[in-house]
Amino acid sequence: MALLYKSDPVRGRRWRALFAEHAPDIEFREWPDIGDPADIHYLLAWQPPAAIATCLPELEVLFATSAGVDQFDVSTLPSTLPVVRMLDPAIEQGMVEYALFGTLWLHRQMYDYTRQQRERTWQAHSLVPAAQRRVGILGLGHLGQAIASQLGSLGFSLSGWSRRPREVDGVTCYAGGETLDRFLADSDILICVLPLTEATRGILNRSLFAKLPAGAALINIGRGEQLVDADLIEALDTGRLSAAVVDVVGEEPPASDHPFWQHERLLLTPHIAAMTQPETAFPVLLDNIRRHQRGEPMNGEVDRRRGY
Amino acid sequence: MALLYKSDPVRGRRWRALFAEHAPDIEFREWPDIGDPADIHYLLAWQPPAAIATCLPELEVLFATSAGVDQFDVSTLPSTLPVVRMLDPAIEQGMVEYALFGTLWLHRQMYDYTRQQRERTWQAHSLVPAAQRRVGILGLGHLGQAIASQLGSLGFSLSGWSRRPREVDGVTCYAGGETLDRFLADSDILICVLPLTEATRGILNRSLFAKLPAGAALINIGRGEQLVDADLIEALDTGRLSAAVVDVVGEEPPASDHPFWQHERLLLTPHIAAMTQPETAFPVLLDNIRRHQRGEPMNGEVDRRRGY
Repeated sequence: MALLYKSDPVRGRRWRALFAEHAPDIEFREWPDIGDPADIHYLLAWQPPAAIATCLPELEVLFATSAGVDQFDVSTLPSTLPVVRMLDPAIEQGMVEYALFGTLWLHRQMYDYTRQQRERTWQAHSLVPAAQRRVGILGLGHLGQAIASQLGSLGFSLSGWSRRPREVDGVTCYAGGETLDRFLADSDILICVLPLTEATRGILNRSLFAKLPAGAALINIGRGEQLVDADLIEALDTGRLSAAVVDVVGEEPPASDHPFWQHERLLLTPHIAAMTQPETAFPVLLDNIRRHQRGEPMNGEVDRRRGY
Repeated sequence: MALLYKSDPVRGRRWRALFAEHAPDIEFREWPDIGDPADIHYLLAWQPPAAIATCLPELEVLFATSAGVDQFDVSTLPSTLPVVRMLDPAIEQGMVEYALFGTLWLHRQMYDYTRQQRERTWQAHSLVPAAQRRVGILGLGHLGQAIASQLGSLGFSLSGWSRRPREVDGVTCYAGGETLDRFLADSDILICVLPLTEATRGILNRSLFAKLPAGAALINIGRGEQLVDADLIEALDTGRLSAAVVDVVGEEPPASDHPFWQHERLLLTPHIAAMTQPETAFPVLLDNIRRHQRGEPMNGEVDRRRGY
């Protein structure tokens, strides 16, 4: 019985060592050296191989190496194949660190101070107390809630929006499409951690920006396809938005003439907010494999109709 | 009976309104319109006027608008005049926000990503877990402790150094000069929040940098005079230090040819980490005035031999 790994080879070596030490009954194979396909019951992948049903006839579970699974075209996957997203605590930690960094970069006007340093200008701007800075979290799943908890301890005024009703301590919670406009009107800094679905594709667009307070700011750590790049540039150039922090782009890497590379009030990072770490992800994955072997429900199993 | 204010005129208007509403028995006067000097029992100042004893013969207390009082030349002040530093909770909040921002900027290599954005390079760097990032706080007074508390909740590995022994939850505490080298050897990111005294002037120099782990980073939110600017540039250029965040400089603003303006692994901000906010500082100040009037000890009174 084997698990096939198809993702970053550097981290593949760390995964291999963890399986050898803690789960020697599960043979670790690495794409493209799959050996006898009939041995492979589990696939751990960022992108599954094409024609998965014929290529891996005995596959029982597809484990994503990522928290989101939108990169899988589920229509090509066997309909009965369970798809499980990665609930590595290192992903949550990375997202919280990045969201906090981005919020402080915007809250403390670091885009202005960075420009001023380049221009050799020594000028302080007045400081808005955190309690008067309204941070809105778009997406209140476990990542959104972890971000809220850390931002709350710094004293920010918090609200959050989710499709289904949530209750989160210290967060004004909005649920459902009809509350979205009210939520947006209260968000000086909007943090997007939504999953990518047909409903959220292109959601960060001109019409949404128009509903934020004038001069609001955006952090996108959801998926690049949620953001209409040209609308963001327009909003920054007209002053509708003051600044933005973007970690994900629809096309990665962006073309060399993409406007995100050079906008001085936009901080662009190369999809580094969070990375799965084998050392913390392995226990989560192994627990799910053992659950599956015992016929128990796994953690993070994707609702394929909902898409996350 | 009057209080004389000598600091930023914009915030002066907010101070005036607070006195008018909450302490009408204390007349608020603003430098240089001092009126009859004999009325002035309290001075609230960033820098006191020269010849304070002759200029303000009835002065009973000098209140600083800042957390540090090194800008006062105590040798020119009457020896019996109490000097009180500002314990505004907004100062603590600002310092915590800035220290956290600076730590995350260094921890997540934002100096590299900022350069890469300019160079249009899309490349992720491996991520060090917060638990493996050792943050050392130089100065464990109330500001250092507040910073430690917030960094601890993000999972960083923390140590702290102070002149006198301290015990702080979750922080490996070092005390006294003979422990400084061991503390430095354990600090991947060093945050300086020391008060400026003769013992700390120039403390952040080549010899100290050589005791940090190779590639360590520095955040200076203490005072500019604690840092030897040329030694920091040398340490960055040789790779001894990887990067630095600097909010205070010996000469503010720095001369236009100062190397801090243009170093790409040094983030320079114009002394904005924290600002006293009249709304939160007023209750602290008024409480101290009432304590003084009742003959009780004030909070934040400076030990003039120690200098803070």
